[in-house]
Amino acid sequence: MYNPLAFPVRMENNTIYVLDETQLPFKEAYITVKSLDEALEVLGKMKTRAFGQVLLFFYTCALVREIDKTAMAFKKIRPTFDFFRLAEILKKACGQNLDIKQAVNGFVQGFEEKRKKRVKKLAKLLPAEARILTICNLNGELVYLYSALKEIGKEAIFFVSETRPYLQGTRLTFWELNKAHIPAKLICDNQAAILMKDGQINCVITGADRSNKKGDIINKIGTYALARLAHYFKIPFYALTQYPREIDIENIEIEQRPEEEVFMWLKKRDFPETIYPAFDITPAKYISGWIEICD
Amino acid sequence: MYNPLAFPVRMENNTIYVLDETQLPFKEAYITVKSLDEALEVLGKMKTRAFGQVLLFFYTCALVREIDKTAMAFKKIRPTFDFFRLAEILKKACGQNLDIKQAVNGFVQGFEEKRKKRVKKLAKLLPAEARILTICNLNGELVYLYSALKEIGKEAIFFVSETRPYLQGTRLTFWELNKAHIPAKLICDNQAAILMKDGQINCVITGADRSNKKGDIINKIGTYALARLAHYFKIPFYALTQYPREIDIENIEIEQRPEEEVFMWLKKRDFPETIYPAFDITPAKYISGWIEICD
Repeated sequence: MYNPLAFPVRMENNTIYVLDETQLPFKEAYITVKSLDEALEVLGKMKTRAFGQVLLFFYTCALVREIDKTAMAFKKIRPTFDFFRLAEILKKACGQNLDIKQAVNGFVQGFEEKRKKRVKKLAKLLPAEARILTICNLNGELVYLYSALKEIGKEAIFFVSETRPYLQGTRLTFWELNKAHIPAKLICDNQAAILMKDGQINCVITGADRSNKKGDIINKIGTYALARLAHYFKIPFYALTQYPREIDIENIEIEQRPEEEVFMWLKKRDFPETIYPAFDITPAKYISGWIEICD
Repeated sequence: MYNPLAFPVRMENNTIYVLDETQLPFKEAYITVKSLDEALEVLGKMKTRAFGQVLLFFYTCALVREIDKTAMAFKKIRPTFDFFRLAEILKKACGQNLDIKQAVNGFVQGFEEKRKKRVKKLAKLLPAEARILTICNLNGELVYLYSALKEIGKEAIFFVSETRPYLQGTRLTFWELNKAHIPAKLICDNQAAILMKDGQINCVITGADRSNKKGDIINKIGTYALARLAHYFKIPFYALTQYPREIDIENIEIEQRPEEEVFMWLKKRDFPETIYPAFDITPAKYISGWIEICD
């Protein structure tokens, strides 16, 4: 299945190619990155996010051959994302007599397999006719999931929450599912409660930018609301998390994004007062399962 | 206080002037209506809604001098709204030896006073420092409410839910509050749960297009989600309702609006599958109080 968001950042020779997600769903364009500054610009403008950020971080370390400096610079721009942990993982791998580039290539090669394994675990837990509500974007993992469900004879339809304000659901998830010819319906975020009440959803699947051992997750703003509502309606709520999970995420600073993003549908800006935390924390008690990425 | 949405439709001689809400917040423009067809066009394009629809219906009856025909035509375009009941009220008033125009003028003159009375009742129920979450638009009534709160020595700040997909919160409520210099913050719909959890909201106020004796209300999609969440967080949820309430609203057809509205922020449309019920039903058990409009 066509799945460009599964590996939205690639490296060839000394150039990084970043799928410009801000141009989706209209145009599938790639930005070339040849320095740390160029990488930081891509990061700050959210040209790529989530898994794309992991790939961008690793490849930038390989490009500039400096791990700590890259981590500090990345962290300053996207404080919610744990680049220091990625730096530790990379340094550990480099300790085994690998240079940074070799270590990064080793990781990247293993990623696809690991992610496919993760969705196979999730596919087993889902209903035979899965009616899946999702938010934000999981970088091609829902495309993998659909294949995994089909392989074991299960059907699925996705209800894609548009994910205001930046509309990753509309621009990325709905786009990638349509491109792969997977049944999907787009909804506004505020429709989720009624769909749950009407029995149209039988599971919720979300990613997690961060997660702790207790099972709390930090993810795109709106995730908490879905979890609270799913818990009320006794609908299972699954989070695709990293492994190993972190000890403490409670003191993490929640990133406040620029208000322009809230008003991007408007041509001009004349509203001063906007609240826009980009992420929220979902406590473990509202999550039915954590499907971890591991070997 | 400047409050143009409090009477968004006016009639002078044989012309109806409709504030074009679709041009807000950029331009305060009025459309002239001189026939039933012109009124229906304004209605179908949602140039005005809620209280503006009531005014438009009454004035159109006065303009074309036919109540039943106007009600049938209006109902066909906006099925969720109870134009038949308005028609009954108007016919009853006309029974008292008034022509339609006189009857309509009588209603309209009483409206402002009734609405101001209603918010005075609500103001008494609210906390001394009210942190009010709201959705969609209440046609100037929050401006009245702010004055009523100030009169009894209470402070208030409004958290305005943008109200996807048509963004009435952003375009109308946030605009009217800003115009009247009332403290207000704009949020995306999916942020409400976190604001409640963090204790930033201490009451929710919403309108109701329809309501029944039991206390269930039909209002803009997203209202139900707020009520469910407010109930969980033990935050009072007040609905501004009509009087008398209806016997049965359960079999009312929920209007499905055109998907273009979901994608109005996009320049082109290439997404076929969108779900867009324009309203939802909120059961009485999640509502703390119904502040009715009556004498």
